[in-house]
Amino acid sequence: MSDIARIEAASFRLAGHAVRTPLLGSSFLNEIAGRRVWVKAECLQHTGSFKFRGGWAAVSALTPDQRAAGVIAYSSGNHAQGVALAAARHEAPCVIIMPSDAPRLKIANTRAYGAEVVLYDRVRENRDAIGARLAAARGLTLIRPYDEPEVIAGQGTTGLEIAEQAVELGIRHADVLVCCGGGGLTAGIALALESRAPALRPRPCEPEGFDDTARSLASGSVQRNARAAGSLCDAIVTPAPGAITFPINQRLCGPGLVVSDEEAMRAIALAFTRLKLVLEPGGAVALAAALFRRDQIEGEDVIAVATGGNIDADLFQTALTHYAG
Amino acid sequence: MSDIARIEAASFRLAGHAVRTPLLGSSFLNEIAGRRVWVKAECLQHTGSFKFRGGWAAVSALTPDQRAAGVIAYSSGNHAQGVALAAARHEAPCVIIMPSDAPRLKIANTRAYGAEVVLYDRVRENRDAIGARLAAARGLTLIRPYDEPEVIAGQGTTGLEIAEQAVELGIRHADVLVCCGGGGLTAGIALALESRAPALRPRPCEPEGFDDTARSLASGSVQRNARAAGSLCDAIVTPAPGAITFPINQRLCGPGLVVSDEEAMRAIALAFTRLKLVLEPGGAVALAAALFRRDQIEGEDVIAVATGGNIDADLFQTALTHYAG
Repeated sequence: MSDIARIEAASFRLAGHAVRTPLLGSSFLNEIAGRRVWVKAECLQHTGSFKFRGGWAAVSALTPDQRAAGVIAYSSGNHAQGVALAAARHEAPCVIIMPSDAPRLKIANTRAYGAEVVLYDRVRENRDAIGARLAAARGLTLIRPYDEPEVIAGQGTTGLEIAEQAVELGIRHADVLVCCGGGGLTAGIALALESRAPALRPRPCEPEGFDDTARSLASGSVQRNARAAGSLCDAIVTPAPGAITFPINQRLCGPGLVVSDEEAMRAIALAFTRLKLVLEPGGAVALAAALFRRDQIEGEDVIAVATGGNIDADLFQTALTHYAG
Repeated sequence: MSDIARIEAASFRLAGHAVRTPLLGSSFLNEIAGRRVWVKAECLQHTGSFKFRGGWAAVSALTPDQRAAGVIAYSSGNHAQGVALAAARHEAPCVIIMPSDAPRLKIANTRAYGAEVVLYDRVRENRDAIGARLAAARGLTLIRPYDEPEVIAGQGTTGLEIAEQAVELGIRHADVLVCCGGGGLTAGIALALESRAPALRPRPCEPEGFDDTARSLASGSVQRNARAAGSLCDAIVTPAPGAITFPINQRLCGPGLVVSDEEAMRAIALAFTRLKLVLEPGGAVALAAALFRRDQIEGEDVIAVATGGNIDADLFQTALTHYAG
């Protein structure tokens, strides 16, 4: 199956189950950015992030026997919730391996969706090894967070919607900024846009210190991050670009953009005031890049994917206290 | 023109200018409410509330001469912003009369949309008299916040969308809870549902102490509020039901629902955690009623219109500090 056919098939299976999230704008944000800014509000997706799309696409692609045996996933929280809810709605058992420093809300929600949560130490332990061992012992199907074609296809449905909404809103040429961890959403959107809206150019956005994809794109070979943790943008901290995702992103993406944690927090405060959206830091880096990297962006329009909103109340209050006004 | 024809005409003029806001759900909210809860996220509308619909409908219905002379409106803030942005996009001069105790954000935004803001004392002065005097002196067309057929028609486009979205989501019978001040949105939605989805029953929702519409519906005659101010729900504090809106709501609405300011604040915190939406108190009363008045609601589904999100950061933080978790 071609990449776009796989995305279309995922879109068919997701119809009626995922939210078609709106593409929102604000004249106040346009003024800051120096161009029209459009925000794809994936924080409004089920489970509070785009990850529900990939989780549903992967679980719904399994055979009945595989679903009955169950699934396993490792995640800092958003993939966890996406897979957990998708599994629950398919009545499939679900184990989720999460870092012990993941936001409390994400751990609690994953459990509330009915998953069995196994915690691990992000710095000392290897989540892939833990996942492989549990999968083998219980006959679970491992659903990788990004290096998995069905997950990439599910995330790619976001790109199909962006292509449609750009036509509706009269957006012709634009950079499409995507918060990027392992690169699954970026790759899915890139494949969808390649087929449906080639004048929209995908670009990964990352936090400072965890800009492995930007450096990999610039150098032409896979670069790793020096640290495993230490950004507010926990949702998009991964060790290196994915083996499946990076070649796609290398072929289709423009240069990566990098913002500071502080700029992500400013974007959170602006999304509160101007868009009435709740974003988490890792879900706000693309908007931060749209607002604060105007000289690195081309065209009269820019689209930023706001990928998630699973933020603890105290951190959100910190953003409002220091950056709202 | 029939009421539904006027709403359809407004919908045609609004196409491509208003946001088709999503109807969002959360299994966590369903559990609290004891039924499926659907939230019509009008806080995501331009200017942060549904009022943009009515403002646009009214300004776009004027003659070119009327638009050139300009418009005037009085409002605690959301109608102000809706009319101001609609006027600006039609290049019409705009004067807005606002109470001096309106939220700072609403006053600042109204000015930023290009309107001339005139402040008055909500308790001592009569905004209608001020509006009439200025309108006469400058040849401005007064756009009333609710007792105005074109405004009601614009707000009614929310009801057209709810009717369509209910079909898409498989919602057959439901109470549709609407945050209610003067009753313009309630009346517009009621007229749209009467024609397009008669199994959806509109019901006004109000804050304690300002439940004029609920008491008027119960008694069969127009009742006034004892006080002119003193609720967190500033957006929906009006002296009495409208002369045009009340007969419509009396004919078409189920009984009114009343919630406390504290319940509205709890709904704000839940919308933050579960829907990733920013609501203001007056925009959260319908969701509060959906969540905390289960015994007064009928059916397996309930739809709550989240009418606005223009809340100052400090009040939002109060909601998170005391009611999130």
